[in-house]
Amino acid sequence: MSRKITKILIANRGEIALRIIRACKELDITSVVIHSDADSEGSWVQKADKSVLLEGHPVQVYLDYENIIRVAKELKCSAIHPGYGFLSESADFARACDENGIIFIGPKAEHIELFGDKITSKNAMKEIGVPVLEGTTTPITDKKEAQKISQEIGFPVIIKAAFGGGGRGMRVVHEAKQFDSLFDAATSEAKKFFGNGDVFIEKFVSNPRHIEVQVIADKYGNVVHLGERDCSIQRRHQKVIEIAPSPSLNDDTRKELYRIAIRAMNRLGYENVGTIEFLLDENDNIYFIEMNTRLQVEHPVTEIITGVDIVQRMIQIAEGDKLHFLQEEIVFRGYAIEFRINAEDPLNNFMPSFGTIEKYLTPGGPGVRLDTSVYGGYSIPTNYDSMIGKLIVWALDWEGVVKKAKRALDEYYIEGLTTNIPFHKEIVCDESFQKGIFDTGFLDKRVEQYALLNAIAPTEDKRISSFFSKLMQKGLTSKKGDFI
Amino acid sequence: MSRKITKILIANRGEIALRIIRACKELDITSVVIHSDADSEGSWVQKADKSVLLEGHPVQVYLDYENIIRVAKELKCSAIHPGYGFLSESADFARACDENGIIFIGPKAEHIELFGDKITSKNAMKEIGVPVLEGTTTPITDKKEAQKISQEIGFPVIIKAAFGGGGRGMRVVHEAKQFDSLFDAATSEAKKFFGNGDVFIEKFVSNPRHIEVQVIADKYGNVVHLGERDCSIQRRHQKVIEIAPSPSLNDDTRKELYRIAIRAMNRLGYENVGTIEFLLDENDNIYFIEMNTRLQVEHPVTEIITGVDIVQRMIQIAEGDKLHFLQEEIVFRGYAIEFRINAEDPLNNFMPSFGTIEKYLTPGGPGVRLDTSVYGGYSIPTNYDSMIGKLIVWALDWEGVVKKAKRALDEYYIEGLTTNIPFHKEIVCDESFQKGIFDTGFLDKRVEQYALLNAIAPTEDKRISSFFSKLMQKGLTSKKGDFI
Repeated sequence: MSRKITKILIANRGEIALRIIRACKELDITSVVIHSDADSEGSWVQKADKSVLLEGHPVQVYLDYENIIRVAKELKCSAIHPGYGFLSESADFARACDENGIIFIGPKAEHIELFGDKITSKNAMKEIGVPVLEGTTTPITDKKEAQKISQEIGFPVIIKAAFGGGGRGMRVVHEAKQFDSLFDAATSEAKKFFGNGDVFIEKFVSNPRHIEVQVIADKYGNVVHLGERDCSIQRRHQKVIEIAPSPSLNDDTRKELYRIAIRAMNRLGYENVGTIEFLLDENDNIYFIEMNTRLQVEHPVTEIITGVDIVQRMIQIAEGDKLHFLQEEIVFRGYAIEFRINAEDPLNNFMPSFGTIEKYLTPGGPGVRLDTSVYGGYSIPTNYDSMIGKLIVWALDWEGVVKKAKRALDEYYIEGLTTNIPFHKEIVCDESFQKGIFDTGFLDKRVEQYALLNAIAPTEDKRISSFFSKLMQKGLTSKKGDFI
Repeated sequence: MSRKITKILIANRGEIALRIIRACKELDITSVVIHSDADSEGSWVQKADKSVLLEGHPVQVYLDYENIIRVAKELKCSAIHPGYGFLSESADFARACDENGIIFIGPKAEHIELFGDKITSKNAMKEIGVPVLEGTTTPITDKKEAQKISQEIGFPVIIKAAFGGGGRGMRVVHEAKQFDSLFDAATSEAKKFFGNGDVFIEKFVSNPRHIEVQVIADKYGNVVHLGERDCSIQRRHQKVIEIAPSPSLNDDTRKELYRIAIRAMNRLGYENVGTIEFLLDENDNIYFIEMNTRLQVEHPVTEIITGVDIVQRMIQIAEGDKLHFLQEEIVFRGYAIEFRINAEDPLNNFMPSFGTIEKYLTPGGPGVRLDTSVYGGYSIPTNYDSMIGKLIVWALDWEGVVKKAKRALDEYYIEGLTTNIPFHKEIVCDESFQKGIFDTGFLDKRVEQYALLNAIAPTEDKRISSFFSKLMQKGLTSKKGDFI
């Protein structure tokens, strides 16, 4: 078969643009990057085979898909890789590529569209037998109706102010008999704080873990999973650390998650890569929350434990290749943890911290992978999000990978801007984290206290290594967070 | 069991000192480095928990073992890791450590001693059934005696001037009937060029590959192998590139090598790590040449394909731990290649090239490991060997790892000194290398031509990618090298 894809336009920037360039090089495919003026000094711009400066707003140029397609056609690119963010989940873009005879490296437009709508996709998944996180989709005012819905969903449920936030007008209802009074409390509080008593009702998941399954499927109905990732370490619903496999998942639940994922993908006729995200409660009940129809930031942890190069496979599948491995040929080995390295100040409410990297020492040695486009002398542009790279570590067992993480974070030295590396060090020194016990409430609980204790004793000597454990002793952190 | 080793003195420098520090950190062991004045700016000196400057000659301080033991005792180090080179194969040092109550992290002194003597060790190995590369151990003058020995060794043999070199006074004898005339030719040439007609007789191995088996053994008689490494890519008997597993080895021969290695180690009661080196001829006949009783430069390729951290295991075994895996639990995955990055000029007879690293961009992303102690701004001291780091790449298959190698070498950018990175790029673009076909003659053949062609057309555009293949077309290189 002659190659369909010989030249790829990369419609992205930063570390993921570099990641895709690397895949192209290893597949002998010519890489073309488009870039904004602000990104002219990006290492990926230098490393691509060709780069095209797009005039205009530094963010808008990565979103203007008509222009991007025009460039792709002009340069005879046979395919476009959208990376993550920007146009990666635009069904319109995927369709426009198709209409212009350009291969969109990703799933079918219909699936991007389906999973772009949280409600439609939940219903679609429910229909094909996937357990979903149930909830109302429109604001409710009527108590009787709310009670009926709660009964259908099953207790515990959570009542949330439709136009509020920050915990106001929010109540968890564990039993039917509590409903009446808690509904009244929630609605009156909502009215008081937000001027509107409307609420949503949703299944309440206590201390959930965020577990997601990576799938990969070709155009011929072959679907395999590449295991799960545990992304419970989040700050305000933003993933901060991702782990594969989950250290706390039991094997029965793991198998059930895989079974659900594969079955759903088969039913939908899904193509290319995707991630099915679930919440798991304390009793390992499984709730589908959403699906990401693209390459994810955290794909490296899966690559490391499986040995599968996900970006290369995406390209080959888009080209029409069959999956060249069977499910039983995927061998999982060890544990991998990814740390998102952000140019931000954890002690100043995680405000982005831009600047020029003056001195730059990177971690290395066994079990360390670094995905970043920054280098010594590089100035972080202020126009984009603060993630400047990903440090990924691997070891044969959980204890080993935690030690590896600490060692590698210690080695990573960036002078000239503030990063969240010290914050990651705190996390890996946390007793609960070291035991592999955490849920989505883990981080938010600790964030405030991190800032607090640093404000109190910023120069304390052994601060980093014993910080969280001291908090635990002082009862400042709870062992289990509540997810509200 | 309480830990025996809590503090390690690292009697080495550069990348291997850093490698050992990393292992210590991951095992919660305090690391102490000794260093010369010339090495004060070494990153490993900063990264160790403690560093001790030793006054004196910059090389000698790493060899003065009485002083090193004194420092170790003073600082209450329970063990010493010698790395490779320097004191790593000194039986006297191992014994002195023992006498001073310090654990020497390595094999027993008796085994270091045994394998320090090439002739005694060959005889010892022969006695326990290992096939060795036979040869005379003293110069011969008598033709009859030489002929008799040749018959015993078995043709082909090589006659070598005892006091010569450079191919003079050297003849390969393929059959007994040729012996008479070739012996006369060799001895008279030897007399003419070196003033002495004495010769050695040795088994001649045609187009050998250098294949070595990594073993690891605890104090309780448990021995496992961690597979083989192909180190055939050598320049003047110095390894340049190391590969695991060997891409050209057939499974029967592989198994036979493992069987020989394990059996020998069992017979000898060998402890800790070691490498048994063999030559293989075109017909896969196996000849033991020597054993290295230490950690080797090329250990990372084995670590990557097995997932075993060899340095951590060395420490644990020295401490008295049992091997915590069985042979059948070692799972081999994919291919790894290590490139020794040397500060040297391939176009100027590989002369060392010292200087300050002005700009430094390191390769990263999937399947890339970098073991180096250098950084942007670092000045390479002139007192030591020119190896400044090791780039190791991994992929699931041979084709993939070759592409990965090219990609990673392309990304590695060091400004301020000349390195052999361009030379490595040439090698990975070589057709024969890409097919996994090479022997110990591979590189020496190509080295001269590399310099030659660069001298002729140093600015030629596609030079790097097509260099060796052009040579092949022009008939300037042979497909198979002769090993003389």
